[in-house]
Amino acid sequence: MYSEDIKNIREEIRDITGKILELISYRLKKSEEIGKIKIREGLPTIDHDAERELREYVREKSSQFGLDDAFTQRLMTLIFKESVKLQEKRTMTIKESQITHMDIFRRAKEMEAKGKKIIHLEVGEPDFGAPLSVAERLSEAARAGYAFYGEARGRAELRKAIAEHLERRFGVPLKDNEVLVTPGGRFAVYLAAAATLSPGDEVLVIDPSWPMYKQVTEFLQCRPIVVKTSIDAGWIPSVEELEKTTSRATKLLFINYPNNPTGVTIDRRRLEEIVEFARSKKLYLVSDEVYMDYSFTDFTSAIELGYENTIMLMSFSKSYGMTGYRIGYLVARREIIERAAKIQSLLMTCVPEFIQMAAIEALKDSETPKKYCEEMKKRIEMVCQRLDKVGAEYVKPSGGMYVFPRFKIMKDDSSEFALRLIEKYGVAVAPGSAFGDYPQFIRISTGTEISQIIEGVDKLIKAIED
Amino acid sequence: MYSEDIKNIREEIRDITGKILELISYRLKKSEEIGKIKIREGLPTIDHDAERELREYVREKSSQFGLDDAFTQRLMTLIFKESVKLQEKRTMTIKESQITHMDIFRRAKEMEAKGKKIIHLEVGEPDFGAPLSVAERLSEAARAGYAFYGEARGRAELRKAIAEHLERRFGVPLKDNEVLVTPGGRFAVYLAAAATLSPGDEVLVIDPSWPMYKQVTEFLQCRPIVVKTSIDAGWIPSVEELEKTTSRATKLLFINYPNNPTGVTIDRRRLEEIVEFARSKKLYLVSDEVYMDYSFTDFTSAIELGYENTIMLMSFSKSYGMTGYRIGYLVARREIIERAAKIQSLLMTCVPEFIQMAAIEALKDSETPKKYCEEMKKRIEMVCQRLDKVGAEYVKPSGGMYVFPRFKIMKDDSSEFALRLIEKYGVAVAPGSAFGDYPQFIRISTGTEISQIIEGVDKLIKAIED
Repeated sequence: MYSEDIKNIREEIRDITGKILELISYRLKKSEEIGKIKIREGLPTIDHDAERELREYVREKSSQFGLDDAFTQRLMTLIFKESVKLQEKRTMTIKESQITHMDIFRRAKEMEAKGKKIIHLEVGEPDFGAPLSVAERLSEAARAGYAFYGEARGRAELRKAIAEHLERRFGVPLKDNEVLVTPGGRFAVYLAAAATLSPGDEVLVIDPSWPMYKQVTEFLQCRPIVVKTSIDAGWIPSVEELEKTTSRATKLLFINYPNNPTGVTIDRRRLEEIVEFARSKKLYLVSDEVYMDYSFTDFTSAIELGYENTIMLMSFSKSYGMTGYRIGYLVARREIIERAAKIQSLLMTCVPEFIQMAAIEALKDSETPKKYCEEMKKRIEMVCQRLDKVGAEYVKPSGGMYVFPRFKIMKDDSSEFALRLIEKYGVAVAPGSAFGDYPQFIRISTGTEISQIIEGVDKLIKAIED
Repeated sequence: MYSEDIKNIREEIRDITGKILELISYRLKKSEEIGKIKIREGLPTIDHDAERELREYVREKSSQFGLDDAFTQRLMTLIFKESVKLQEKRTMTIKESQITHMDIFRRAKEMEAKGKKIIHLEVGEPDFGAPLSVAERLSEAARAGYAFYGEARGRAELRKAIAEHLERRFGVPLKDNEVLVTPGGRFAVYLAAAATLSPGDEVLVIDPSWPMYKQVTEFLQCRPIVVKTSIDAGWIPSVEELEKTTSRATKLLFINYPNNPTGVTIDRRRLEEIVEFARSKKLYLVSDEVYMDYSFTDFTSAIELGYENTIMLMSFSKSYGMTGYRIGYLVARREIIERAAKIQSLLMTCVPEFIQMAAIEALKDSETPKKYCEEMKKRIEMVCQRLDKVGAEYVKPSGGMYVFPRFKIMKDDSSEFALRLIEKYGVAVAPGSAFGDYPQFIRISTGTEISQIIEGVDKLIKAIED
């Protein structure tokens, strides 16, 4: 079927491929050697500076050999990942705890199924529930037959209502084709990433962070690059640090204010600096603003700052207590929305239309978000008062629904502590290690009623004193 | 900071990396050469046999050099993609038509927005709507507060109800942990694939097929491998053909009976052969059975045949007219369900619980699916009668909601015909090319009311006669 020419070239390709693999194998062995030395010298496995230097070198070589830079950078990510994997196999002494707040939640459910009473201070779900008007609208819409396939981006009237709502609030003109209705905030995060990343890309995540950002990055075969913040710096990220950590493979930065788990919000000036940084590096800036309505201070949305690669995401879960409705949205320029809509169309068709009708109803209600915000503020203040009594360190939240204190006695096992706390005291909290390298921290959620929070925090303090 | 040793090894790694890139660059140039020869000889860009051979070779080399096979196969996928990209840059002449039934649907919506009347024979959505009892149950559940985060796999009572429903129908014992509730059939297809595939894997798709199977395969950076069936063979796939097309990289086979777009169902014996084939090649068998309740003959579910890597998927959309509710499910062994549930938990948290309550209500209703099936059968018979009058060729559907006739005068442009049909006659149909290499075919959907179908088919016949 093929000409001799093709056959000969194929054989050559085969041989070259073999040589490439041999070199890669040799290269990985060299990385393993470095790994061994690192163990001896007590150094961490990942060395961003070395990696960045090598990427720079790869870029030069790419242009020398006429290779597409995006392609070779992806190739390098694959190879880096493999060498880290091999090095970690060797250093697998104390592996970072894999317990997340979801594990604690599951254990809590198991214990409850056996009849044990559990105080839930672990899950990011407010106990408020949706306003009656929203449930009523859902019912009417379902009975009226808003229950067929619809547009993947969402109903035009809902997208328009969202655009107007944001315009009123932030003074930014928005069009309905800059909005995409999603089945909840998680899917919005996923779509933002899936519409902009390719395998091998690097993604900046500011720790402590909601685990979803790293998980979705890895799920898309990209690489999360962590920039840590500290309690001493008030959990405020350093733009210098972000810059130092950015490489040519970096494509996206996640930010999340008010923050989960710390509750801090950055002020407008700092946000401007971050946007400026993203612009200078041509990064997609994904701003998760699901806690915007639980802000106790001024709140600036990333969409106010006019950077074209901003993707803002929001949900109805917190503002209107609509967690179980699974509805949220993305705001971005039209091209990004279209890419995300294609993925949504493929995987989902659309969000149920009766739920979209309920969301339109929710947007008419400006009282509920205020009421819920007031309640969260009260609960958080109460937690802080109790923590103050025992001298726990924390940054006072300016929003959100969590407090993230440090208990120095915990050293490096807040996950184990969290498991013991639920077994012995029936109190579920999220261990700091679920949000990054914060083993001495605990996330206390204020999503449950006030008497439960008091009882839970008191037991937590008792457990720590024990 | 680093010891001399590390520095030296780093330099070596750098040099090796340079050499790897040089070889890759050389390799890609060789692919380009093949590309040029292919243009000269009129051959297609992608050559699966050559790729499969090379992957086989890579597998051998991987084990020789102690490399992880999954890693090197991913590496090869990146390199293959890059060479196809480079070759296609050269061969970009007439690209395969990209018009799908979704494009026709969109055009229909646009024309409707301008006030034009369109007859919809293109979309796979029955016009029935959900029974009132289902909408009522949804309303009650939302008002009663079934609107919080729930288990990713779905509520235990719904999973139990599904397991019992299938057990009653197919006589197969099922446990609730072998069921996963999904937001619709599309997401079920996605989860089945995402839970079992790795980038670079090959997936068997039997054409003509619903476009989703190929799209989701490519979305997951895997490669759809098409096995064609023909109208002359009654659209029945040949197991010999499947066997010939399977390589070591093949991991999954999609089947879909009653079929979209042909309406045919395979009998139990043929299904057994396919299951036997899947078993012998250790493939995941994903059986899309969303049209099972629109069966006009005996229907055998893949779950009856006891192959452990069977993943059956189903939806409430067709059986109960619940398209807009976005709810379906997967049935598979526990380990697969758990992997899928992890992905669902990451991307979605869960399906809204009030929708799950509505689905439980639907399962109590055995009359509605029968009624809807009767109606579809009647509509399909009516379409067939009309097609018989003009001597169109088709295989008489034994289920589903489509007829897939061939009009030989169409030669190779049923997409263009479909566009003309909507512009000139206001009738929307899906072109055969949306389902594979079937340019002379048209898919007529019977999802709309009978008078519309008559009018639409009459106009279609007139357009063809013109």
